Amino acid sequence: MAYHDLLGVAAADATDLLEHFERATYEGREYLHLSDTRHGVERGTVLVDGTVVRGFPKIPRTLVLDPGIRRFFDGPFAVEEKLNGYNVRLARVGDDVLAFTRSGYVCPFTTRTVPDRLAVGDFFDDHPDLLLCGEAIGPENPYTDHDYPTVDSLAFHVFDIRHRESGDPLSVDRRRRLCDDYGFPQARSFGVFDPASGAAAVRDVIEELDSEDREGVVMKSLDGRKLLKYTTSAANQGSLAYAFAVPFDYGPEFLFPRVMREAFQSVEFGESEEAARARAHALGESILLPAVRAIREVEREGATGEEHTVRGPPEAIDGLFEHLERMKLRITVLDDEVEEGERVVTFLKHSASTTDSVQSYLDGQTFRA
Amino acid sequence: MAYHDLLGVAAADATDLLEHFERATYEGREYLHLSDTRHGVERGTVLVDGTVVRGFPKIPRTLVLDPGIRRFFDGPFAVEEKLNGYNVRLARVGDDVLAFTRSGYVCPFTTRTVPDRLAVGDFFDDHPDLLLCGEAIGPENPYTDHDYPTVDSLAFHVFDIRHRESGDPLSVDRRRRLCDDYGFPQARSFGVFDPASGAAAVRDVIEELDSEDREGVVMKSLDGRKLLKYTTSAANQGSLAYAFAVPFDYGPEFLFPRVMREAFQSVEFGESEEAARARAHALGESILLPAVRAIREVEREGATGEEHTVRGPPEAIDGLFEHLERMKLRITVLDDEVEEGERVVTFLKHSASTTDSVQSYLDGQTFRA
Repeated sequence: MAYHDLLGVAAADATDLLEHFERATYEGREYLHLSDTRHGVERGTVLVDGTVVRGFPKIPRTLVLDPGIRRFFDGPFAVEEKLNGYNVRLARVGDDVLAFTRSGYVCPFTTRTVPDRLAVGDFFDDHPDLLLCGEAIGPENPYTDHDYPTVDSLAFHVFDIRHRESGDPLSVDRRRRLCDDYGFPQARSFGVFDPASGAAAVRDVIEELDSEDREGVVMKSLDGRKLLKYTTSAANQGSLAYAFAVPFDYGPEFLFPRVMREAFQSVEFGESEEAARARAHALGESILLPAVRAIREVEREGATGEEHTVRGPPEAIDGLFEHLERMKLRITVLDDEVEEGERVVTFLKHSASTTDSVQSYLDGQTFRA
Repeated sequence: MAYHDLLGVAAADATDLLEHFERATYEGREYLHLSDTRHGVERGTVLVDGTVVRGFPKIPRTLVLDPGIRRFFDGPFAVEEKLNGYNVRLARVGDDVLAFTRSGYVCPFTTRTVPDRLAVGDFFDDHPDLLLCGEAIGPENPYTDHDYPTVDSLAFHVFDIRHRESGDPLSVDRRRRLCDDYGFPQARSFGVFDPASGAAAVRDVIEELDSEDREGVVMKSLDGRKLLKYTTSAANQGSLAYAFAVPFDYGPEFLFPRVMREAFQSVEFGESEEAARARAHALGESILLPAVRAIREVEREGATGEEHTVRGPPEAIDGLFEHLERMKLRITVLDDEVEEGERVVTFLKHSASTTDSVQSYLDGQTFRA
């Protein structure tokens, strides 16, 4: 069967769609991944050895809980925690379970570390056509560094299960029961609410999560098909601080939307002048101070970037660094140790764009704006 | 003579160039103005009745005084105050003196108010081929609202004189003497400096201007040909506050560059942790609080925008409102009085983009980012 049939795309669009897939390889196995959503097929969709692995859809966001929630849902919805890590899809391809990043690369580190921590073999033996979607969180991974008090190294929490080929989700209830059956950690559930009265309940959840420096919620229709997200101030500001540590890499596109999330939240939460001012100060700090530190670092060290620590079997670590090299990222290893048979490596992922831009502006190059 | 010859553009590029001019009219007179810099011809260049009026060039900015200044200038340079108002070019066209905005529109308000305040008739009788470039500043104008302690209503300060057709500038010295001869107010001069030692002097100037909430400086090679600008923190934050009063109109493009100006200035000025934090708080306030106020205003009043007051002869005020109408701007007059034969009108220039975006997000429309 042709791939476009598997993807449910008309034959007339098949050529255009296939042209937008990019080639990559994992352990000698060639695969294609889609770099942008196209003809209704999600970014990150993968074609490998006759198997389709659908991408995870982009979740719309509301800037106001009320009336955002009532306008979006026409029936009861579940509220689950949105975790701050990186989005991973696990699927069985042939005899292997592979872990795919949001954009559809096979991540060798995640492929070799996450399945060890979960009974995915049993799950895929029983459900070879399903796709486990979850968040890899914790301090020891190559992509993010948000801390969770209960995660020492790396954990994988399932927040969705879909049909691998169609992308259709299981219902919330069925997904949560399946995860229980296989002992998979899940995104925390805060219960089911009605659209008419749910905003107040979600606001309480958001305030609790905010006070714990957690990211926010994803609200889901009970059939799993409609998803809506809303984040805490801690997450809005935290992601700005993360972005402005390498400002010329992520700054421009991160900045404006997060400022507006903060502004709408301040208004909806009815903040006093004093509370709005305190939020403004925290917002200013999350933007300016990391940028100042990045400029100082380039001035002093000649480079800046993101520091990550990873822990895993030696072959997972080797696979990761080969992958980062293929992605043309410059890496400096800062620390490399063996602890109980696992390698623990701390490295700097150089930010070429920030380093080069900061260096040239420090050298007096004129600025466009 | 063909326009492209007057503009010094090769015949081969003439068609493409002319296609990028847009048509407009002023009192029944049709003219063309260039919407974007092209083939070396500046944005805002005007073709009217066989006369060429060159646009004012975009001035490059440095993010660091040192080594920015030494890298940019190869000889002594003059330092003049950069004023915070709107850029106006005055030129004689036929028998009239017309005032052109940065983008090359004839501004009926400026055309009818500024020449009354200056002896431009004498000037253009003597120098019909020159172009007076200056900043219109003060609280009573339709475009900006920055206050200067010595300007009650509207004033025009010359900062450049150029050849109308070629755009070539007069030397700094000749321009300042000419302005003196005709009694034209000028941008304040802080003197002439050497590239090797000038950065420290300019920093002193910037700190003084910053403490007075003034905008910054333009540095100029003595022949007037090389221009470089640098602004105060007060101006960086002030323009953010201005932009975030109508965030969806100006926010995205204003935000990132100004944050980076602040970050480089903090580093170059060697700020302590405490000073950088204070700057971050002020920056946060200049971004978030105007946005919060704008959202509240849309929630309460159904609209937001920029409030301006203008003062002038009745026909100048009529001309202005006809012009704003042709520009498809929605205006609400808030106050309209006559004082000593002049009309004084306060009006709201509706910000369609901010009003519509805020309204729809308040209504629960999902957000793209």
